[in-house]
Amino acid sequence: MKSLSLDEAKCLLEKCKNSGRQVDMTRGRPSKEQLEIGMRMLESAGELDYTYAGGDARNYGDLKGVPAARELFADLFGVGKENVVVLDGSSLSIMYRLVANAMDFGIMGEKPWREQGRVKFLCPAPGYDRHFAICEEFGIEMMTVPMLADGPDMDVIERLVQSDASVKGIWCVPKYSNPTGIIFSDSTVECFASLKPAAKDFRIFWDNAYIVHSLTGEQHHLANIFDEAKKCGNDDLIYEFTSTSKITFAGSGIAALAASEKNIADFLSHLQFEMINPNKVNQVMHAAYLKNTDNIARIMGEHAALLRPKFELVDRRLFEAFGRDCPDVKWTMPLGGYFISLDVRGVAARVGELTKCAGVKFTKVGATYPYGKDPHNSNIRIAPSIPTLEELDFAMDALIAAITIALAE
Amino acid sequence: MKSLSLDEAKCLLEKCKNSGRQVDMTRGRPSKEQLEIGMRMLESAGELDYTYAGGDARNYGDLKGVPAARELFADLFGVGKENVVVLDGSSLSIMYRLVANAMDFGIMGEKPWREQGRVKFLCPAPGYDRHFAICEEFGIEMMTVPMLADGPDMDVIERLVQSDASVKGIWCVPKYSNPTGIIFSDSTVECFASLKPAAKDFRIFWDNAYIVHSLTGEQHHLANIFDEAKKCGNDDLIYEFTSTSKITFAGSGIAALAASEKNIADFLSHLQFEMINPNKVNQVMHAAYLKNTDNIARIMGEHAALLRPKFELVDRRLFEAFGRDCPDVKWTMPLGGYFISLDVRGVAARVGELTKCAGVKFTKVGATYPYGKDPHNSNIRIAPSIPTLEELDFAMDALIAAITIALAE
Repeated sequence: MKSLSLDEAKCLLEKCKNSGRQVDMTRGRPSKEQLEIGMRMLESAGELDYTYAGGDARNYGDLKGVPAARELFADLFGVGKENVVVLDGSSLSIMYRLVANAMDFGIMGEKPWREQGRVKFLCPAPGYDRHFAICEEFGIEMMTVPMLADGPDMDVIERLVQSDASVKGIWCVPKYSNPTGIIFSDSTVECFASLKPAAKDFRIFWDNAYIVHSLTGEQHHLANIFDEAKKCGNDDLIYEFTSTSKITFAGSGIAALAASEKNIADFLSHLQFEMINPNKVNQVMHAAYLKNTDNIARIMGEHAALLRPKFELVDRRLFEAFGRDCPDVKWTMPLGGYFISLDVRGVAARVGELTKCAGVKFTKVGATYPYGKDPHNSNIRIAPSIPTLEELDFAMDALIAAITIALAE
Repeated sequence: MKSLSLDEAKCLLEKCKNSGRQVDMTRGRPSKEQLEIGMRMLESAGELDYTYAGGDARNYGDLKGVPAARELFADLFGVGKENVVVLDGSSLSIMYRLVANAMDFGIMGEKPWREQGRVKFLCPAPGYDRHFAICEEFGIEMMTVPMLADGPDMDVIERLVQSDASVKGIWCVPKYSNPTGIIFSDSTVECFASLKPAAKDFRIFWDNAYIVHSLTGEQHHLANIFDEAKKCGNDDLIYEFTSTSKITFAGSGIAALAASEKNIADFLSHLQFEMINPNKVNQVMHAAYLKNTDNIARIMGEHAALLRPKFELVDRRLFEAFGRDCPDVKWTMPLGGYFISLDVRGVAARVGELTKCAGVKFTKVGATYPYGKDPHNSNIRIAPSIPTLEELDFAMDALIAAITIALAE
């Protein structure tokens, strides 16, 4: 440990400021080197056969996506192909559409949410700001649920979901959670799968964004929520999502929904008015490049090799400055995903101000909480993927100096 | 002319039926040969530079699309780049979203349509069934407006739009109209551009789907509705759409919206909750392949060379069977687009039944009218693009025989 004195910290922050350098760590974006990995897919695009039994990916048809892509995601999710729809680049779009459909048309024959008075979503926090933003867009009330080490607080969730029919959904990132990096335990998944909601049209929005995004090369276990739900006849309860945004290209990949056949039919009954089909050419390219789950794990190993040193640098620098036992500065060292979640007790907003002045931008403080309000003014989401190691070292100078100053103030 | 006797017609239809052949002409889909044209785009996908000033198409960012694609569509539409958003494959999705946004959130600060009681759209007919389907999905009342030779009946439109604040929109395909193939005259476009709607949140949905889809090689004139609208300070009135579905790949191309800066800002204010960006990799591929309006015209010449003989065959076969002066059988010979619109007075449904039994499927009779109801039971949309010339000749045997029988019955 080589913690800074207040004077040293002020001096270091001033040095950062005077360097005129800018580092943007606001979002979990892949680096240029990671994007180069996906170029192999584009290089073979001209040589592929875009036809398949019963269709041509270059022509209209197949609202659910091409068979090869649906099979690939079915294997990833551990569900049947009939439970999968593959669409365009953004899984967020699928979530948005499902919420919009529920508001306007209702889920599987239930009344539209719009006609049911005030409706609510449970939001484990810290969580993903874009999930919360969808609720804000549609005027859905958000109720914060604490995140624990093995998932959200299931006692709170059970009580609210099972007693209040105005609770219609919950946002989850079950693997390498955004931003805390935890993996939901088996008992958490089982508890989700066996919920008995007061509302028939309650749905779990299971955003498995980092389904294959190990940082260690090891494949970490997350229980299959559909397997658990089937045991109690509860599989209509779940919408599961993922995308290739951090496997191939961010926002230019393909995204998938897994759900029960009834839910899929309900979704398609509205989607058919919006499009004839998603970009199937891109789906054939992806299926040919990604091939199968083993090959995806290999590709993700290439990403991990680029990402891991960055996570390690952040961890090492924080450890050197604050040690593991500082009560005011705690952070996660995740096994996968894109974020290190840093808690700086009561001074997150001030740290954000100070680093911003020094040219280093983090995700807006508070963004990981519903309505952008962190009740403890404590959480900072560090997204180390984009900067180079050298830029990251600079950013950590600014961050450590800022924390030291803010805590002293 | 070599018209068939009733006996000859019955014999010919029976022959078609017994052949066991199936020809599907339900939708305006490009043929396999047309899709091969676009393969050149995919062949160079691996060699392109996906970075541009201020961005990388392979990473998150640029909700409006990549600059090169926005510039290309701005040139095609004849508007500024600031007036263009480029999204994924389906222009229908953009239309759907705009209607959904208007229903749920309202247009540019006006009350949501949902809160304004019954709202109505004007539907020039025959028209595009998927436009009408969006209205049905959202419970928007459709009012049929007759299509004339130079566009929809503007007297009817002016009267309804200017007197009734519940009239919120109108669907138009202004060039090589679906299905009648007409091009709106300058005076029709001027009349649209100078409408003074009773509703502030009335919008013209100007679906310029066939903006460059000439069948003759000649570029046919359609007045620029934005130029006209600006003259009377009316440019907030228009949403214009197009896509490359019939330039590159159907549903796997890119689609664009052109609108006033205020409308664009309004659209993006909701789109930002739904996605971080569209598939920009596909946009860079398209911009590099399509290059500019001249090059697009050259590519469309390749499509026209494949399409024109099919349109000519349909025209020739109908002419030989019924001549130009048959009061019961009239059809269009369009200068562009994907359809021949056939009117068979009072017997369209019966013709559809007879051809279907003989293995030849047309767009569902009535589909070109709101609620699927053709008041004259007269319109059949012929989409000759998909079949080979030989299949098309077979389909025309069945069609001509069916018309002859239906008229005799």
